[in-house]
Amino acid sequence: MRTVDIIMDKRNGKELSREALSFLIRGYVAGEIPAYQIAAWAMAVFFQGMSTEETAALTEVMLQSGGRFDWSGIAGPFVDKHSTGGVGDKTSLIVAPLVASLGIKVPMMSGRALGHTGGTLDKLEAIPGYRTGLQEEEMREILCKTGYAMTSQTAAMVPADRLLYALRDVTGTVESIPLITASILAKKAAEGANALVLDVKYGSGAFMQDPAAAEALAHSLVTTGAALGMRIIALLTNMDEPLGTRVGNFLEVEESLDCLEGTGAEDLMEISLELAARMILLGGKAQDPAEGRRRCEAALASGKPRQFFLDNIRCQGGDPEQFLAMRGKYRSEFTADIRASQGTFIARIDARKIGHAGISLGVGRDHTEDPVSPTAGVQFHKKRGDPVSPGDRIMTVWAKDAASLQAALPELQDAVEYAATPPAPRQLVLKELTVLSNHTKEQN
Amino acid sequence: MRTVDIIMDKRNGKELSREALSFLIRGYVAGEIPAYQIAAWAMAVFFQGMSTEETAALTEVMLQSGGRFDWSGIAGPFVDKHSTGGVGDKTSLIVAPLVASLGIKVPMMSGRALGHTGGTLDKLEAIPGYRTGLQEEEMREILCKTGYAMTSQTAAMVPADRLLYALRDVTGTVESIPLITASILAKKAAEGANALVLDVKYGSGAFMQDPAAAEALAHSLVTTGAALGMRIIALLTNMDEPLGTRVGNFLEVEESLDCLEGTGAEDLMEISLELAARMILLGGKAQDPAEGRRRCEAALASGKPRQFFLDNIRCQGGDPEQFLAMRGKYRSEFTADIRASQGTFIARIDARKIGHAGISLGVGRDHTEDPVSPTAGVQFHKKRGDPVSPGDRIMTVWAKDAASLQAALPELQDAVEYAATPPAPRQLVLKELTVLSNHTKEQN
Repeated sequence: MRTVDIIMDKRNGKELSREALSFLIRGYVAGEIPAYQIAAWAMAVFFQGMSTEETAALTEVMLQSGGRFDWSGIAGPFVDKHSTGGVGDKTSLIVAPLVASLGIKVPMMSGRALGHTGGTLDKLEAIPGYRTGLQEEEMREILCKTGYAMTSQTAAMVPADRLLYALRDVTGTVESIPLITASILAKKAAEGANALVLDVKYGSGAFMQDPAAAEALAHSLVTTGAALGMRIIALLTNMDEPLGTRVGNFLEVEESLDCLEGTGAEDLMEISLELAARMILLGGKAQDPAEGRRRCEAALASGKPRQFFLDNIRCQGGDPEQFLAMRGKYRSEFTADIRASQGTFIARIDARKIGHAGISLGVGRDHTEDPVSPTAGVQFHKKRGDPVSPGDRIMTVWAKDAASLQAALPELQDAVEYAATPPAPRQLVLKELTVLSNHTKEQN
Repeated sequence: MRTVDIIMDKRNGKELSREALSFLIRGYVAGEIPAYQIAAWAMAVFFQGMSTEETAALTEVMLQSGGRFDWSGIAGPFVDKHSTGGVGDKTSLIVAPLVASLGIKVPMMSGRALGHTGGTLDKLEAIPGYRTGLQEEEMREILCKTGYAMTSQTAAMVPADRLLYALRDVTGTVESIPLITASILAKKAAEGANALVLDVKYGSGAFMQDPAAAEALAHSLVTTGAALGMRIIALLTNMDEPLGTRVGNFLEVEESLDCLEGTGAEDLMEISLELAARMILLGGKAQDPAEGRRRCEAALASGKPRQFFLDNIRCQGGDPEQFLAMRGKYRSEFTADIRASQGTFIARIDARKIGHAGISLGVGRDHTEDPVSPTAGVQFHKKRGDPVSPGDRIMTVWAKDAASLQAALPELQDAVEYAATPPAPRQLVLKELTVLSNHTKEQN
């Protein structure tokens, strides 16, 4: 088997065998196949795509490049949730304690902020002392105690994905649906979750802005997952505007607790409940999403999920009392307000512009090695559809320093769109995709 | 300027600016841009192509990566000829002394055998003592003495092409028309030839088997050349069968001398004369190809080109007397005949199968570092259209060793196709392409 022949087969539109994919990925991880050949192959995949069988084989080959969590001895079910990334998207922090309080185990491996999208690990690390670099034994202990554990991808987990993702990032081959699919599913399979709810976002603040492209990714994820024996439900959700009322690391942890206390923003609660309802369904604790949702609502009313959240903070190295004392106070000193420039309605607050401004503020980062600020962010006082008068406060902004604040203000101001009449209500969940006995089920 | 943005622009079908191409190629040659980014870009070029302006800019950027021969002080005109490669294609060895004898200077930078196609340098080096690694001063001296000089690409000439070609070879990005175009034209411009006759081959033994693909390459070469101010005529010629009656290194040098002595095979003479006629035209020594051809025929009748050929051997380190004494005798001892298996007509002798068998025999090579044999090869006693009886000798074969001989015989036998009736005559020159005042002229 010659690498160049495998590259040319893919370039010419052929389906690669599992053996060929294994040869490529094992060779790359072992340092026997140079990065330039993998880069050429990845670009050929970008143009020619991959069949479901091929994507499933790539996922398995990537999974086999490293270890896999083994939760034998812990009572399941194990269900995870993954989002393709957005602005103000703190649903992981809400659904994990919520479904854990209903007896589902969530061993969640998350990522960091990159570009305009936020990262679950950066948010959690805004809690002083909170550690996300867990080893398997620690995860096991925390899963047993609080039902959910939040960790970063360790060096031993799916090393092929870390190598391949870093290469794709610098070779213009990130936006390939089969490569994205294999990257997500290999990591989720490595976690030991065999059921998964996917939040595939579309709109200005999403990775895939176009709904059709997001749906193609969702379709690839559910069909490839099915080929691998994973049970997956994907929701296509709207990411034209930031979710909830806060964007920022500590700010979003606070907002997650608000949701668990029943005072969360409507859009954020709606998407969180729809995701959690399906985790309950996949975990076998409900017959349908509606029943799952009712159980989640009842759990929230009981206050249990809030306690799971605070227990998890303690288990992962934080101090829940200290965290509660910091609530509403842990803010950067470099602050300003954004005020309405006209007296009409808020038509939209553009998620991508807020996300980009967040990079300047210190919420996110341009490069994986850049630090983020725990205390930077944006709080929205007005959202889509709200009437405003000139001078009304729309946002309060906190930046990592004075210069960053000044740099971000024009883009934040520019993110606010006005209209003379209230905008139509937003459809938060556009579509649900899943595969039941190898047929794709779509619900509009 | 970021490399990944340039890659993504090309991936998305955008035309790259000269600045972007210069950034890429200079960065790659300087070791500042890693090979994996260039490989991804090359694969994106494979899929998205390049405009004529872009290809011309890439050619210039590649040319600027190294030195350029300077023939000032030598009386021109300087005209070169380039072939896209074939089997039994020794036309360079014939047309160079032929047009040199008519006052045209030919500073020719040639290549080596690779895969099933032969290499001019390997053929010349079959002459004991013949040196092809000339420096500029030696070339100048030889050009002045015999009108033509044959050299390999030196390390200082178009280093970007050497690097890029080696990378394309292992990343499945060889077959890209704009990348082939820039590679050929940058080397030809570096030679100091501003007029060029191209032999773009199609058919089983050609790099581009499909006539339409070969024509697309020819079109790219003439239009890009025109954009660079080079005068180019391209002939699309047939490479379904080996040219002439011999394939092999020393064997083809001998056959070239036969042609210069007026006893060459008809197909080989026809293509050589058509190419030479156009070199005469571009050199300003004829008004049209027909006049160019008449001048070439008269030169051959005078015996002058034969003398130029022998003088060149002496100038480049060989001994013409020794060469003439070796004629017909310098053969490997490992020899066999291929005989007719039926009594009909030869319908075709497949160029690609002969070329592939030549790799086993020792005529060609699979890898650039492999050695070739001067004394291996094939001599055809029968060609397309000849009637044969069972047992008639069709070829005599010489191999580098006994095992290689046995390995090659079945493929050589298989290369012979028979038919009950004589095949239709072959059209050797399918089409001529050139650009006159920025309009492509095509003659069928």
